[in-house]
Amino acid sequence: MAVASGRGLVPCIIELRIEENDLHAKGDGQMSIDLNCDMGESFGAYKLGLDEEVINYITSANIACGWHAGDPMVMDKTVKMAAGKGVGIGAHPGYPDLLGFGRRNMDCLPEEIKNYVVYQIGAMMGFCAVHKAKLRHVKTHGNLYLMSVENEALARAVAEAIVSVDPDLIYVALAGAKGELMTRIGREVGLKVAYEAFPDRAYTPEGTLVSRRQPGAVIKEPEKVAERALRIAKEGKVIAIDGKEIALLAQTICVHGDTPGAVNLVKQIRATMESEGIEVKPL
Amino acid sequence: MAVASGRGLVPCIIELRIEENDLHAKGDGQMSIDLNCDMGESFGAYKLGLDEEVINYITSANIACGWHAGDPMVMDKTVKMAAGKGVGIGAHPGYPDLLGFGRRNMDCLPEEIKNYVVYQIGAMMGFCAVHKAKLRHVKTHGNLYLMSVENEALARAVAEAIVSVDPDLIYVALAGAKGELMTRIGREVGLKVAYEAFPDRAYTPEGTLVSRRQPGAVIKEPEKVAERALRIAKEGKVIAIDGKEIALLAQTICVHGDTPGAVNLVKQIRATMESEGIEVKPL
Amino acid sequence: MAVASGRGLVPCIIELRIEENDLHAKGDGQMSIDLNCDMGESFGAYKLGLDEEVINYITSANIACGWHAGDPMVMDKTVKMAAGKGVGIGAHPGYPDLLGFGRRNMDCLPEEIKNYVVYQIGAMMGFCAVHKAKLRHVKTHGNLYLMSVENEALARAVAEAIVSVDPDLIYVALAGAKGELMTRIGREVGLKVAYEAFPDRAYTPEGTLVSRRQPGAVIKEPEKVAERALRIAKEGKVIAIDGKEIALLAQTICVHGDTPGAVNLVKQIRATMESEGIEVKPL
Amino acid sequence: MAVASGRGLVPCIIELRIEENDLHAKGDGQMSIDLNCDMGESFGAYKLGLDEEVINYITSANIACGWHAGDPMVMDKTVKMAAGKGVGIGAHPGYPDLLGFGRRNMDCLPEEIKNYVVYQIGAMMGFCAVHKAKLRHVKTHGNLYLMSVENEALARAVAEAIVSVDPDLIYVALAGAKGELMTRIGREVGLKVAYEAFPDRAYTPEGTLVSRRQPGAVIKEPEKVAERALRIAKEGKVIAIDGKEIALLAQTICVHGDTPGAVNLVKQIRATMESEGIEVKPL
Repeated sequence: MAVASGRGLVPCIIELRIEENDLHAKGDGQMSIDLNCDMGESFGAYKLGLDEEVINYITSANIACGWHAGDPMVMDKTVKMAAGKGVGIGAHPGYPDLLGFGRRNMDCLPEEIKNYVVYQIGAMMGFCAVHKAKLRHVKTHGNLYLMSVENEALARAVAEAIVSVDPDLIYVALAGAKGELMTRIGREVGLKVAYEAFPDRAYTPEGTLVSRRQPGAVIKEPEKVAERALRIAKEGKVIAIDGKEIALLAQTICVHGDTPGAVNLVKQIRATMESEGIEVKPL
Repeated sequence: MAVASGRGLVPCIIELRIEENDLHAKGDGQMSIDLNCDMGESFGAYKLGLDEEVINYITSANIACGWHAGDPMVMDKTVKMAAGKGVGIGAHPGYPDLLGFGRRNMDCLPEEIKNYVVYQIGAMMGFCAVHKAKLRHVKTHGNLYLMSVENEALARAVAEAIVSVDPDLIYVALAGAKGELMTRIGREVGLKVAYEAFPDRAYTPEGTLVSRRQPGAVIKEPEKVAERALRIAKEGKVIAIDGKEIALLAQTICVHGDTPGAVNLVKQIRATMESEGIEVKPL
Repeated sequence: MAVASGRGLVPCIIELRIEENDLHAKGDGQMSIDLNCDMGESFGAYKLGLDEEVINYITSANIACGWHAGDPMVMDKTVKMAAGKGVGIGAHPGYPDLLGFGRRNMDCLPEEIKNYVVYQIGAMMGFCAVHKAKLRHVKTHGNLYLMSVENEALARAVAEAIVSVDPDLIYVALAGAKGELMTRIGREVGLKVAYEAFPDRAYTPEGTLVSRRQPGAVIKEPEKVAERALRIAKEGKVIAIDGKEIALLAQTICVHGDTPGAVNLVKQIRATMESEGIEVKPL
Repeated sequence: MAVASGRGLVPCIIELRIEENDLHAKGDGQMSIDLNCDMGESFGAYKLGLDEEVINYITSANIACGWHAGDPMVMDKTVKMAAGKGVGIGAHPGYPDLLGFGRRNMDCLPEEIKNYVVYQIGAMMGFCAVHKAKLRHVKTHGNLYLMSVENEALARAVAEAIVSVDPDLIYVALAGAKGELMTRIGREVGLKVAYEAFPDRAYTPEGTLVSRRQPGAVIKEPEKVAERALRIAKEGKVIAIDGKEIALLAQTICVHGDTPGAVNLVKQIRATMESEGIEVKPL
């Protein structure tokens, strides 16, 4: 994580109680960041995302597990590709709702959520075994992610699923104030937690994502997004929607690969990081 | 396997070329047999099978993986139950056809079959990890099983899926002449193979299952089925449909748990085995 | 509707503003009631409900449309059976959630709900055409029903779906105070509305169903349920959970066919109605 | 059908026994052709095909029914669009195999096939009712189409499904020698049959489609495809793979809308037809 090397950030780290099992939090003097991207979201005859392009610029792939998107053919191909490029492989489980792409809330019981996540992580591990790769992290998808941010019982179900399959898995949680529930529960069950920031999303002065329904919630200018990504990685800060700088600790930055423009932006973000001396590497 | 201890069977074993990596084939002087049963085939609100009853009498559970039947809740419950009873846990992968219960042929490519099997085994391993159990074997379901008996390319896809996820998994293959393709390919890819016999199915003089479409294909009298099961376990033989005795080597016997009558039959088979000094134990 | 003929009930009817397009509300002097039951909820190899038994005692069948339950084979068989018995055929659409049996809320857009309901009604009409029967009514299933009770936008989506496929379809809505939203919207779009009562559920003094989470919400004694059904049909009244009698106008009474006990209860309800001179007939 | 007006074709028509209930076969002196295209194959977040473009040049839309592709939102939108453009609306039913896009054979029973087709046609009729349009034709998709060409029992199941839902529906069958089974059965059950030709596919001298596995099976040059389409429409003939002209009677020509190039080709085909005095109109 970038912030670990910046001396001025130490107090901030203390404030947010970064604990020993948080990734890269030991202050090794070397700035680094992970770039993660959702991948493997094609299904059967349906193609989604420029995976073969974006894979060259990212360091972690969150690969759909066949529920909200993805299928075994796509999983096999994507795990193989990620393993071949040295990209960190993650499971990206979602709701059982291909029709809604996992973006609609489903009122599942915690026990259901736990078993749905176990199932999807396990399936992904099958492909990791085939390609002699290791599953590194888990990032939930769509409304399963959003729900984990707000609902303690469901958030705990997700975290327990992950730790009970493999306690070495890294749990990707929302960076900033709104991610505190996910982070706390992830740690409580014994997981390593990686904070994830969204450089193309506006943040409130309190460090919370601005709702997509509000104007200005999504930042579209590539230069601005790249600049925000750099500030997050280098300084552990972001300019909130009110124009003031706030702390935003993150070990991983979420990028997109669904359009040629998006892929170019990822390429630019990576180049900027490297030219600024920030190592771009997997979690 | 029971037959290994019967001296008179040695030539037969040699004829069928039982190789070193076949289970229990080393003639340790102790007769034993495995009783396997398909389980975990309920789905959501739909209940199928008397799993909680039959689990008490079997030694291997072939657990559905959510494709032709089963769901994550059912898988979790069934793996937990099997682990608690010391029953060997197996994955029971099938076609992506819940509507047809995996019993209709689907014209899939070998690469598709391979990835479908990897996916399902992996998902089952997720639940094994949660319950700190080990996945022991794989037995394909319905038409995925039947297809493996006949089609070399697809049989190879199944075997390669299994070995590439975990080479220690035991591959359950059809005993008798008709199972030679499955057995040979299983061995070629490096898997341990367990022969499976069906005491409630008639066999041709050549050691092949009589087609279900022919009269007498399914044996319904419980006493007769129990007697056949015993003969398979004790002597490695079965009475073919023409009344003559033929060799039928098997390490595992398939039983059913879908009705109270079926469960009673399993109970009776187990009691008979034990009273005859045959150890009933997992593969 | 039975109540229309009871003179003492006229004021109550006026209070609840039964309008001309409500079924049987014209006071034709003949008491009648409809008995409706959810049917056709089997799926593939999975069997649910004693449809072949209960069909003999009911007058309206709410037939699952293949989304939360049911499949084309089951739909065909059930429509054929209902048509042959003179039972009113209804579509019973639900959420796209077979795994959750349509009992989990899904956060769908009104436009999605509308199209899901159109799809399912249309599919059911296909089978009605095959068996030269007419689709008579629509009753939503599980959480799609519950949601229609509470959420105006979604309730409107359901009602618009029904009327836009066929304005002659009868819309089954919850009887009592809690059903007012469904009823009002059904009428607004131009549908005939039939009020549905649940004799095995407790009602609050305000005429609302007592939540299943509260003690006493479900009435289990068959005699009591039959007695309540009769009072609803004959007097348009029910004893609320506080012991006081309240008005509960209903043209249809929901019964169940999932167990032999449930079927016997339906048989008993029907016999009681007929012995009391209440005609049991379709909507 | 265009050919009916060309005098030289009369003998050929007689040879192929065009019967009275075949479309446009009465020789009204006006050449016409229908251009049909598969549409509505998007699903949830997945987009497939340039429907909004190609709709402007075709006269019949074969709209997916949510099984091999399509969903209720897509069906609603596509039916509305087709109705608004005066394009003939057809159901395009397929196997229950979204993962395989309906392109893999599934070994279904005739009764299953019949009910699957009834279900899908019915669902499509629901959307036609909403948009006050009439369902005009049915064209099966992928392997459900191919299977109807070869297997009499299954072909009959499809035809009976169509006629039992609505005997006025037009059944689109493969033109040429290979389509004889479909055509004969369609007529036997009482359906109007429309012959469909594929100008981008090579034909054998016997009037059968050349297998896709053989070289030259698919014709890729747009000019050549347009020229072949014209010859089919104008003369009822096609140049077979051996260079000789054969008769190929067709009332409808299959075109594609999946790429900008494909759409341009459709535009060109239509323009060519019109400039040659052939009316392009729905079945």
